[in-house]
Amino acid sequence: MDALQDFCVADLKGSPTINGFACKDPKTVQASDFSFGGLHIPGNTSNAFGSKVTPAFVTQIPGLNTFGISMARVDYARGGINPPHTHPRATEILTVIKGTLEVGFVTSNPENRLVSKVLRKGDVFVFPIGLVHFQRNTGHRNAVAIAALSSQNPGVITVANAVFGSKPDIPTDVLAKAFQVDRSVVQKLQAKF
Amino acid sequence: MDALQDFCVADLKGSPTINGFACKDPKTVQASDFSFGGLHIPGNTSNAFGSKVTPAFVTQIPGLNTFGISMARVDYARGGINPPHTHPRATEILTVIKGTLEVGFVTSNPENRLVSKVLRKGDVFVFPIGLVHFQRNTGHRNAVAIAALSSQNPGVITVANAVFGSKPDIPTDVLAKAFQVDRSVVQKLQAKF
Amino acid sequence: MDALQDFCVADLKGSPTINGFACKDPKTVQASDFSFGGLHIPGNTSNAFGSKVTPAFVTQIPGLNTFGISMARVDYARGGINPPHTHPRATEILTVIKGTLEVGFVTSNPENRLVSKVLRKGDVFVFPIGLVHFQRNTGHRNAVAIAALSSQNPGVITVANAVFGSKPDIPTDVLAKAFQVDRSVVQKLQAKF
Amino acid sequence: MDALQDFCVADLKGSPTINGFACKDPKTVQASDFSFGGLHIPGNTSNAFGSKVTPAFVTQIPGLNTFGISMARVDYARGGINPPHTHPRATEILTVIKGTLEVGFVTSNPENRLVSKVLRKGDVFVFPIGLVHFQRNTGHRNAVAIAALSSQNPGVITVANAVFGSKPDIPTDVLAKAFQVDRSVVQKLQAKF
Amino acid sequence: MDALQDFCVADLKGSPTINGFACKDPKTVQASDFSFGGLHIPGNTSNAFGSKVTPAFVTQIPGLNTFGISMARVDYARGGINPPHTHPRATEILTVIKGTLEVGFVTSNPENRLVSKVLRKGDVFVFPIGLVHFQRNTGHRNAVAIAALSSQNPGVITVANAVFGSKPDIPTDVLAKAFQVDRSVVQKLQAKF
Amino acid sequence: MDALQDFCVADLKGSPTINGFACKDPKTVQASDFSFGGLHIPGNTSNAFGSKVTPAFVTQIPGLNTFGISMARVDYARGGINPPHTHPRATEILTVIKGTLEVGFVTSNPENRLVSKVLRKGDVFVFPIGLVHFQRNTGHRNAVAIAALSSQNPGVITVANAVFGSKPDIPTDVLAKAFQVDRSVVQKLQAKF
Repeated sequence: MDALQDFCVADLKGSPTINGFACKDPKTVQASDFSFGGLHIPGNTSNAFGSKVTPAFVTQIPGLNTFGISMARVDYARGGINPPHTHPRATEILTVIKGTLEVGFVTSNPENRLVSKVLRKGDVFVFPIGLVHFQRNTGHRNAVAIAALSSQNPGVITVANAVFGSKPDIPTDVLAKAFQVDRSVVQKLQAKF
Repeated sequence: MDALQDFCVADLKGSPTINGFACKDPKTVQASDFSFGGLHIPGNTSNAFGSKVTPAFVTQIPGLNTFGISMARVDYARGGINPPHTHPRATEILTVIKGTLEVGFVTSNPENRLVSKVLRKGDVFVFPIGLVHFQRNTGHRNAVAIAALSSQNPGVITVANAVFGSKPDIPTDVLAKAFQVDRSVVQKLQAKF
Repeated sequence: MDALQDFCVADLKGSPTINGFACKDPKTVQASDFSFGGLHIPGNTSNAFGSKVTPAFVTQIPGLNTFGISMARVDYARGGINPPHTHPRATEILTVIKGTLEVGFVTSNPENRLVSKVLRKGDVFVFPIGLVHFQRNTGHRNAVAIAALSSQNPGVITVANAVFGSKPDIPTDVLAKAFQVDRSVVQKLQAKF
Repeated sequence: MDALQDFCVADLKGSPTINGFACKDPKTVQASDFSFGGLHIPGNTSNAFGSKVTPAFVTQIPGLNTFGISMARVDYARGGINPPHTHPRATEILTVIKGTLEVGFVTSNPENRLVSKVLRKGDVFVFPIGLVHFQRNTGHRNAVAIAALSSQNPGVITVANAVFGSKPDIPTDVLAKAFQVDRSVVQKLQAKF
Repeated sequence: MDALQDFCVADLKGSPTINGFACKDPKTVQASDFSFGGLHIPGNTSNAFGSKVTPAFVTQIPGLNTFGISMARVDYARGGINPPHTHPRATEILTVIKGTLEVGFVTSNPENRLVSKVLRKGDVFVFPIGLVHFQRNTGHRNAVAIAALSSQNPGVITVANAVFGSKPDIPTDVLAKAFQVDRSVVQKLQAKF
Repeated sequence: MDALQDFCVADLKGSPTINGFACKDPKTVQASDFSFGGLHIPGNTSNAFGSKVTPAFVTQIPGLNTFGISMARVDYARGGINPPHTHPRATEILTVIKGTLEVGFVTSNPENRLVSKVLRKGDVFVFPIGLVHFQRNTGHRNAVAIAALSSQNPGVITVANAVFGSKPDIPTDVLAKAFQVDRSVVQKLQAKF
């Protein structure tokens, strides 16, 4: 979606909804519409994955509307992971601000090749659009990354949650056959998400 | 990628490779470059999933190059599934030619809502770009669908294969934490893919 | 138009109208918004052309909005044609479900090369965006095809109708000179459309 | 096709061919690559249509490559027409430099509405992408227009030529049925193109 | 922004505002929505630059909405200039209708190469998207050009005005350091814009 | 430019050159093709502007090719500025890692409104595509920012350099009239760049 004016600051509560967002009246636009604070604040990683994403997407920065880019901070506890996930609408570029991360993405069928690397402070890595990828903190203390994504609203699909935690559930039989395990294994996984 | 000439038939063996494909010399282009046969032939569904996709992508039809569309036939044995997967570069539209299919897709985080429906012969359904989706044959005999995708090379990422069958493996610890199961469960899954 | 969210189901009766359609409230979206029935039902080919297109465009499937793809069924009586036409906003890919079709497209000036082929059941063919193309049933019984198009609303311009059947008419003098025939010939053609 | 560098001047004789053109070595690029002369010279309108298009497309101005725009001059003899045609890859905007033009375009099915207007010197008009359109000199002397198109290579499909003058011919039976006339009428038309 | 219907004539006073414009009800669309008059009328060049741009953008021609193209006339008094400026959203193609113009554009860092040429009547030149460019009338009388741009609303950023004439001012210290001059020089420049 | 495969790692030395880059043979692609090191290393700000940009564009990370995103680190000495500049092909999003920055962009004609804000650690700001923008370190020590841009090769046009430092020079008369100063002032400015 190419921009057709200098900016179209999202009217986040506007009606009707459209692809992206309608624009606020340009006369009421303020510098704060292009801004967001708090990316220096560590996210709370006290969760099962030991990681936390703090987004600066169009919902946080309405001035991003129509511009095809966004940002995020990711915090990782010691041993924490950003579990395998995809962004259905964006490529991601990430740089390590602190710590050590093992990162990787998997190519599509039939190769399903894992392309992975250990990143240290100052390293940058690219996760191509739509591919499954993950990060793991392999250092001895917490880690922090700044990521940017090629969409104002990249979307996140955590594989485990989408597959085993959808509402309602994907039929157990489908998942048992998809993962080639007993239904009981699927049910245990579904219980966790 | 908008087309910049009437057609740019893919030179599939051309060098260098580019985004998509270089074009064959237009003078050597034949009607057969825009064609492909065999979408009436049932795919062999004697496999673990009980389904088979027969693609008509740019690799099969070089005339699709630069045009943002492709097609496929999907066969489903009785009880067969097309397991949860994504297309990183395409939305899919599918129509049932024979039989009955339960189909669904899961929205991105945090909702992970399953949108599903039972389709009968002549029904059409849409799977939005990048979202996890599946089909299951819930009828009493085999089923057949014709699908179209909004890319000349949509890519397929079967979730189970990408996550548990990558080469090399995603570290077992990452998957154990991601799926919140013991490492032994992950290893069993990895052994199957 | 890249999608900026998982889906933007068309609010077909929404106001104001925009490029494509505004989105329904996501909370009210149902599986049926992504679905359409009846592509197994033969279209009524009792007309001058002996063919009938049954569309599954965004007007039929509001869930197609923003996704750049659509589908259609085409029925052909014995000897029926889908007359020369263009899609101003889409490339078409078509597969024959039943019968035999002679298909072709014509390249742009100055070559105006006809690229044509006889298709049988299971054959697939591509009609590049904007080019004049047609199909003819050359078999001994009716024929059926499933087509997909690279736009949610590809548009159809039947050449004869647009040129000789516009409302109001294109000036007769323009058409007489364009087709290099007497005005009386043009008037006869205009009378038919 | 968004530009990914300041310019990519077309290497018009380059090999292999790609979508658009490969780039000349930037070091050898000259101002003349972005230029073209002669749009002030009247085209020769001594032909059946009484009009002549002088293009300034990427083939004439290699510097247009990747930029999605081009220009043309159109000359019209007294009574001359630019016959009904489409541009498969571009919208056109046209301004009258001299004389008087009746212009129009026809919307797609099922309306096939003719939207037309008489333009005088200094008037501007828009012909939407892919729609059939024409111009006619309705003044008492020659007329001249400058047009711009939203593609480096918009393509031109003169309806009469594509339908009745393709090489080889579209089958006479197809055209007879499409235009609902006798085969003999079609053959006369085919003989002229 | 690909068009998703034959046309989406801008409802220039519509509410809410969106990227580009919402569409007028197609039933109320008139030929005049695709038209604009007056590009034959010389612009008033009695100003500091000795030039005047008469735009035919979407604001003047609502029918341009979604089509990615627009037009303009530029008048130059003897010795007049169209001062260094950029179009943030468009490539420009320009043809000289009358007189002689020296034109040029400057490539991005680090080369900052000036690509320039003297154009005479009938010459065409391309100014790549986003690059600084200018025209100067080097002939002995006034000059006129017709330009087309690859956006319905290309935007114009006159460098001197944006840098020294913004409201409020860019801090004087920033400009003094940017242009490596004393603050007093900056203040004089700011006073003029 | 939508990606048409999982990745198309730039063959930076490939021939011929194309829009963006041709792809390396996928079999030879390594994780290092998606990576780049050193974004933690302060840039050398001992220059006239007191700032330094360290890019992570496609030239540094060939894996960015076709993906529409890139990253950069910007260092600012005390009092340093990133002088007024544009990116002809990208919107920028920036977050402050250290220190305090006054940032702003100027809208296009005729408003030329300065939208500015003081950013502190953790603040994020957006600079719309093609608009003139700058940053200034207003803190008492050095400052650091991480920026991301919506192009693999966004381009940088430093206004002062492009206008007063092009090679060859923009004619002095053009600049004198454009900035409404004496030729001697222009010559002094040209001497500095």
